[in-house]
Amino acid sequence: MPSVTRSPESGGCEILCIGTELLLGNILNSNARWLGEQLAGLGLPHYRQSVVGDNRERLIAMVREASSRCRVLICTGGLGPTPDDLTTEALAAAFTTPLQECPEVWSDIQAKFAALGRTPSPSNRKQALLPVGAAVLANPLGTAPGMIWTPKPGFSLLTFPGVPSELRAMWAATAAPWLRGQGLAEGVFLSRILRFWGAGESRLAEQVADLLELANPTVAPYAGTGEVKLRITAQGPTLLQAEELLAPLEAELRQRLGAWFYGVDDDSQASCCLELLRRRRETLAVAESCTGGGLGAALAAVPGSSEAFLGGVIAYANSVKQGLLGVPAATLEAHGAVSDPVAIAMAEGARRVTGSTWALALTGVAGPGGGSAEKPVGLVHIALAGPQGSTSEGVRFGAGRSRDWIQAVSAGEALNRLRLRLLAQTQSEGQAPPT
Amino acid sequence: MPSVTRSPESGGCEILCIGTELLLGNILNSNARWLGEQLAGLGLPHYRQSVVGDNRERLIAMVREASSRCRVLICTGGLGPTPDDLTTEALAAAFTTPLQECPEVWSDIQAKFAALGRTPSPSNRKQALLPVGAAVLANPLGTAPGMIWTPKPGFSLLTFPGVPSELRAMWAATAAPWLRGQGLAEGVFLSRILRFWGAGESRLAEQVADLLELANPTVAPYAGTGEVKLRITAQGPTLLQAEELLAPLEAELRQRLGAWFYGVDDDSQASCCLELLRRRRETLAVAESCTGGGLGAALAAVPGSSEAFLGGVIAYANSVKQGLLGVPAATLEAHGAVSDPVAIAMAEGARRVTGSTWALALTGVAGPGGGSAEKPVGLVHIALAGPQGSTSEGVRFGAGRSRDWIQAVSAGEALNRLRLRLLAQTQSEGQAPPT
Repeated sequence: MPSVTRSPESGGCEILCIGTELLLGNILNSNARWLGEQLAGLGLPHYRQSVVGDNRERLIAMVREASSRCRVLICTGGLGPTPDDLTTEALAAAFTTPLQECPEVWSDIQAKFAALGRTPSPSNRKQALLPVGAAVLANPLGTAPGMIWTPKPGFSLLTFPGVPSELRAMWAATAAPWLRGQGLAEGVFLSRILRFWGAGESRLAEQVADLLELANPTVAPYAGTGEVKLRITAQGPTLLQAEELLAPLEAELRQRLGAWFYGVDDDSQASCCLELLRRRRETLAVAESCTGGGLGAALAAVPGSSEAFLGGVIAYANSVKQGLLGVPAATLEAHGAVSDPVAIAMAEGARRVTGSTWALALTGVAGPGGGSAEKPVGLVHIALAGPQGSTSEGVRFGAGRSRDWIQAVSAGEALNRLRLRLLAQTQSEGQAPPT
Repeated sequence: MPSVTRSPESGGCEILCIGTELLLGNILNSNARWLGEQLAGLGLPHYRQSVVGDNRERLIAMVREASSRCRVLICTGGLGPTPDDLTTEALAAAFTTPLQECPEVWSDIQAKFAALGRTPSPSNRKQALLPVGAAVLANPLGTAPGMIWTPKPGFSLLTFPGVPSELRAMWAATAAPWLRGQGLAEGVFLSRILRFWGAGESRLAEQVADLLELANPTVAPYAGTGEVKLRITAQGPTLLQAEELLAPLEAELRQRLGAWFYGVDDDSQASCCLELLRRRRETLAVAESCTGGGLGAALAAVPGSSEAFLGGVIAYANSVKQGLLGVPAATLEAHGAVSDPVAIAMAEGARRVTGSTWALALTGVAGPGGGSAEKPVGLVHIALAGPQGSTSEGVRFGAGRSRDWIQAVSAGEALNRLRLRLLAQTQSEGQAPPT
């Protein structure tokens, strides 16, 4: 299988996640997955992940082992203010290094509490301690900073809190640039995620089977929630040369996979639709039954979405479908709430009451209860209303899917329909489609 | 230091998950979480988890390391028929033991293919090979069996396929009974998550500092998104005795931490509010500006939410605030959209147009743009309208927080206000609060 991690083991990175809650199975180790993706994207070799509990002696032993094996150890968890947060202290002890208070960290903690009108507790002061010689890895979001420390030649360690949002912000701002500068990757790695909607992983992989065999650049498929991602990575002596390898591969994939392709890297179906609407100076409203606001939330998650997204109605109860969206009682009675006529009436109602150019409506059976032979769990009717009229279709997502999967994917499916309509509209008007 | 893992390291279990897709972050390691839960439930000490790729030499090295450290190694993945499925062969090589074909496994594979009207390929025959001396760990669902093998005194290993459904069936039928018979268990472990809202991790931990020192049962705090969790764990010779240790601790924590406590295990603020509403036979509507539907989506994520959640209005644009919720233009002009008077008008509007008992409204600056000195990023006004009138408050979440954090936590904060109001109402009416 294609991989960007090809250099000798001695140059590698390891991930060490610290927390008894991981050993007890209380939470999924989503940080290990996310960090694995990031390391692959940076072209950094990564051969091993470990998990240890909040236990000082075992943590010390594992860090010492890792220091004889790898070049960079990425640690997560155990940076909080409570007694079982012992990562910093144990790492210092592993290399018999004293801790000292970092005044700028303590000032920063005090300032962050003050901004919330609060005073840090004495236990928070522990978070300002770092081993002598370690550099602060700033935490722009929370009070617990991490560190970048080289306790012995050829071995560095980075620490992050276990809170995913803080870890990700610290990674992007400080850790990723630092790692890029360490010369661990062989040359420059350039990586991009291409996003596809409308085909499963195996169907999509079959269309590009020959490209999955490439050595440089490489293509690796990942299944997402309702979507498939292809990570393309090129390695070259310079960024320009890596880009020259990557560009023709990206063009080939986009050409072969046509309308399935919807975006790159951090794009979402929502951000792509909002960008198309913005260019067309058009607006969107939603009418949501089974998703209960999830489609609106996906749109509102995009910064600046208010330029094109007006809002809409969460019509969870039939009385709201009637009262706020004007769905006729007779239509509800004749066809049931989960039907094309109701979905169309909802979309047209949302368009009418908000004055938007377009409106999307969703009504379905998210489960686990409420299904019938005729209208099973996983059946969602999706309607799109626009200047030229309305369309609706029933989509069956399969009863084996969970409620949250059905809600998330049906919202994505609705946006995909809008995206394809906007692209077709733009093309039929003779404008070049956005690239 | 609280931890449930106190026995000598030599008696423990370890988990080793094998697969390059885990290192690359293609998939979440849900098997490690599930196995961790099972081991805790069986009362088996478990100190370490590891992940390695589909690489023969590294796998051999890791198994040898583990064999000098633990009593039982649980391996997942790499049992399929393709060339990169090399677990069985590498484990045999780690202990210089030859492989031999197991005739009943090969018969079983042929029978399973025949039942589907197919013939196994030569590569499937590889799956019938086991190290000399290993016992078959039967796979009732798929073609790949695992093994139970004691390659050296005091060290046993179990192998499972990576497919979760097969792993779980094999665990229940064979592995769990076998492990129970090994005399490794230190009784039964019982664990529960208590959920708190309204206090930070350090403030909450200080209230229960003495309890964090307990040895059995134990208490461990974790920070979540806007909430704090305490994991309580008891160990006893039987489930009943573990429960007898856990119950008084849970009662003590709930009593000390009072209104901060909101739920247990898989509860969410949304599920707790919906349960309170259901008992009171009351209904809820929402009016969302900055969260764009996220509050409604959190409510709709709960199965059966339609019993109490009616829906509402996503009033992202001011025109929707006016048109659908009846917020007066003069109020918007005088106070701005992010203000208590507008939040109250939104909540009262949602209550009026849906006919709900209660309504929650949110209007704020989710960022990253749109902030000002007076109304910075992270300021959200939250209003609650009910039968006795309306209240609203501006909450400052801090400008350092991300857009999605502000959206998620302000929705949780709104639900927390409703929850406290419903509890107070229920108590003032002389009904016992739900336990």
